Amino acid sequence: MPTKAAPDETHDPARQSWVESANAPGADFPIQNLPYGVFSARGSARHIGVAIGDDILDLTRLEDLGMLCPGSGRVFDEGILNPFMKLGPKVWRKTRAAIAKLLDASNPALQGDATLRQNVLIPAADARMHLPFFVRSYTDFYASREHATNVGSMFRDPHNALMPNWLHLPVGYNGRASTVVVSGTDIRRPMGQIMDAGQSAPHFAPSARLDFEVELGAVVGTDSAMGARLSTAQAYEMIFGYVLLNDWSARDIQVWEYQPLGPFQSKAFATSISPWVVTADALEPFRKAAPAREVPLLDYLHEETPNNFDIDLTVDLTPHGGQAHRIAQTNAGALYYSSAQQLAHHASSGCAMCVGDLLGSGTISGSEAGTYGSLLELTWNGRDPLAIGGKPQSFLADHDSVTISGACQGAYRLGFGQVSGRILPAD
Amino acid sequence: MPTKAAPDETHDPARQSWVESANAPGADFPIQNLPYGVFSARGSARHIGVAIGDDILDLTRLEDLGMLCPGSGRVFDEGILNPFMKLGPKVWRKTRAAIAKLLDASNPALQGDATLRQNVLIPAADARMHLPFFVRSYTDFYASREHATNVGSMFRDPHNALMPNWLHLPVGYNGRASTVVVSGTDIRRPMGQIMDAGQSAPHFAPSARLDFEVELGAVVGTDSAMGARLSTAQAYEMIFGYVLLNDWSARDIQVWEYQPLGPFQSKAFATSISPWVVTADALEPFRKAAPAREVPLLDYLHEETPNNFDIDLTVDLTPHGGQAHRIAQTNAGALYYSSAQQLAHHASSGCAMCVGDLLGSGTISGSEAGTYGSLLELTWNGRDPLAIGGKPQSFLADHDSVTISGACQGAYRLGFGQVSGRILPAD
Repeated sequence: MPTKAAPDETHDPARQSWVESANAPGADFPIQNLPYGVFSARGSARHIGVAIGDDILDLTRLEDLGMLCPGSGRVFDEGILNPFMKLGPKVWRKTRAAIAKLLDASNPALQGDATLRQNVLIPAADARMHLPFFVRSYTDFYASREHATNVGSMFRDPHNALMPNWLHLPVGYNGRASTVVVSGTDIRRPMGQIMDAGQSAPHFAPSARLDFEVELGAVVGTDSAMGARLSTAQAYEMIFGYVLLNDWSARDIQVWEYQPLGPFQSKAFATSISPWVVTADALEPFRKAAPAREVPLLDYLHEETPNNFDIDLTVDLTPHGGQAHRIAQTNAGALYYSSAQQLAHHASSGCAMCVGDLLGSGTISGSEAGTYGSLLELTWNGRDPLAIGGKPQSFLADHDSVTISGACQGAYRLGFGQVSGRILPAD
Repeated sequence: MPTKAAPDETHDPARQSWVESANAPGADFPIQNLPYGVFSARGSARHIGVAIGDDILDLTRLEDLGMLCPGSGRVFDEGILNPFMKLGPKVWRKTRAAIAKLLDASNPALQGDATLRQNVLIPAADARMHLPFFVRSYTDFYASREHATNVGSMFRDPHNALMPNWLHLPVGYNGRASTVVVSGTDIRRPMGQIMDAGQSAPHFAPSARLDFEVELGAVVGTDSAMGARLSTAQAYEMIFGYVLLNDWSARDIQVWEYQPLGPFQSKAFATSISPWVVTADALEPFRKAAPAREVPLLDYLHEETPNNFDIDLTVDLTPHGGQAHRIAQTNAGALYYSSAQQLAHHASSGCAMCVGDLLGSGTISGSEAGTYGSLLELTWNGRDPLAIGGKPQSFLADHDSVTISGACQGAYRLGFGQVSGRILPAD
């Protein structure tokens, strides 16, 4: 199975859309992107859409009109991407090419029909975005070597920061699917058991060390059977696309609960994702090799192709009524394990993988301060507070907003948009 | 909200059914039980049924016929229990009473109509059982103090076997929902990364330390909202019923992978459950208080009522072509944390709980050898092999079958049936 599709006309940097805003140099959603999402506008039900410039192309209506029919039955009528994803990578590519054609500057079909255009092209500003797919399961990995090293240094031993297994397998754990929410959803500060230093018993209180984690989320688009293992090439083909992901974390709850079975309530209260799923096909030109291996990987984790992506990520923290502070800039390209490797490892025991499974990359940290993907690391567990609005701050305060943005930059810019969330006080 | 319903006529020990096999003293499924399951027979689609003696009462057909209508629309037509469970505890109780009435020896409605009876009463021997509900998420706890102590003694420190958090909170982790299977499903021996003693790198191989874990599974029947916490009383009311659960475990994969984020592929390949969901209502007469608390629990874990259940459990190991060996007998009554406490803790951060969530109790072990709920403990990690068919055996061999049975015994016997699975060789 070919795992590196040749760039085709959907990746042509010169291609322009008749949707003018898509051609602006700083646009997140040029005609080369075409990410999928779920929106409602003007009181309508949830429709499937594709972002183009400042607008959304309504695929549910196009399917209604018989102008875009990826399946033999309807796939855009349930308000989630799962039925479309289930059709598999060949259909994903064909549909992407068909949508690009509809939006191409040289094609009069839509642009020349004002009534039709008005019916299927909705200003993004008028739309409300929803969770783009039913999250069947959520799994969170730990694939940034710098992050794992930082955490190991703080909580275990700076001289043996990485666990012995880390260089051999993509360490991960099952998270909670029921609380994956779309960008813009307010996040309630969690309560939980906290063991304060010097105390002999925990108390139940609002988390005082609430944090974010910058991650990339891979969206599994097809099933694998129970008992079936996957090569990294097969795994790569199963991934429909990627979102930005904020794995909200309560560090004080986590440090008390996590031994020996891993994080639980400290992560279960919320995980936010960006509303637009950027397809693996759109990311083709931005593939990047993983870092050199310090020890050889076992065969089932071997990659024939570069499966990382060169994605710049930024984090802005905005206190209540204040200005946004850029607190971190990092890049997803240096992750030690790709999503394809994570998925291959996930199925290595025979674990069945499903349409709608979401795989978090793990916190993405670079090798120096300012490139770390969590407050835990940026403030070194509170030792070195940031200055936010002139005041020292180590963890998230009530009413703070955290916004993660992401974009690739090559012959053109390809953006993810943002994932944003605001902290509400515990109640 | 009352959390200990008064025993009613559905718990009357003197009550008999016109289905004669239900009245036998050793029957698992007397008229006081009425567990729900999903079956197909004679090539039909999946129907919802209730076990009664050696037969199954077909609720899907009864709903078709207008003789049992718990909801305003149909709830027994999707081949899973989720739509019925969603109706909530009042409807569960009403439906249970209505089914008991239909099956009561004094009621001629069904027993007097041979054609109708033949249409809605199917011999269990003719039926194939299926997974009874869509498993939205699977969470596994660690609620047996003896089990946690045994594992801690073997792998950490016999003098400090329990982690400091264990007496304060029900330790748990998210498992994998996609590989929860019904009893009778063959289990493929998993492959995985294994680090042998004295080696510097792991190899990828079939697990050589494959194990079972005896657990009770609680089935969540109603939703809780994101951000909502639950009292143990509210949590108790949300639990529709219980199944026997075998949390298959690959110990060699587990010991290498589990730090610091918990078990992952070592548990992801399969979890088996018994096909009949014994309702919380049926278990009312068998409630039992949890053991005395060594340290006080925080308020949110406080229980006003006894929320454990006095359930005898046995484990039989049957080698290929050989005899069944009874290798363990234990009881669920001594679990340190009840399912209600586990569910209250699960929601304590604001984690949304869902219809179809499955909560494993954790391995149920007693305080002496022969009452341990895993081979890891029964053989003390291979130090003291069992004698199976005259040969020493520490972990599961290919073609071994493991069968867990469970029943309550009071004024009458109330059985769970069995959860069984056979090991297929790795491939």
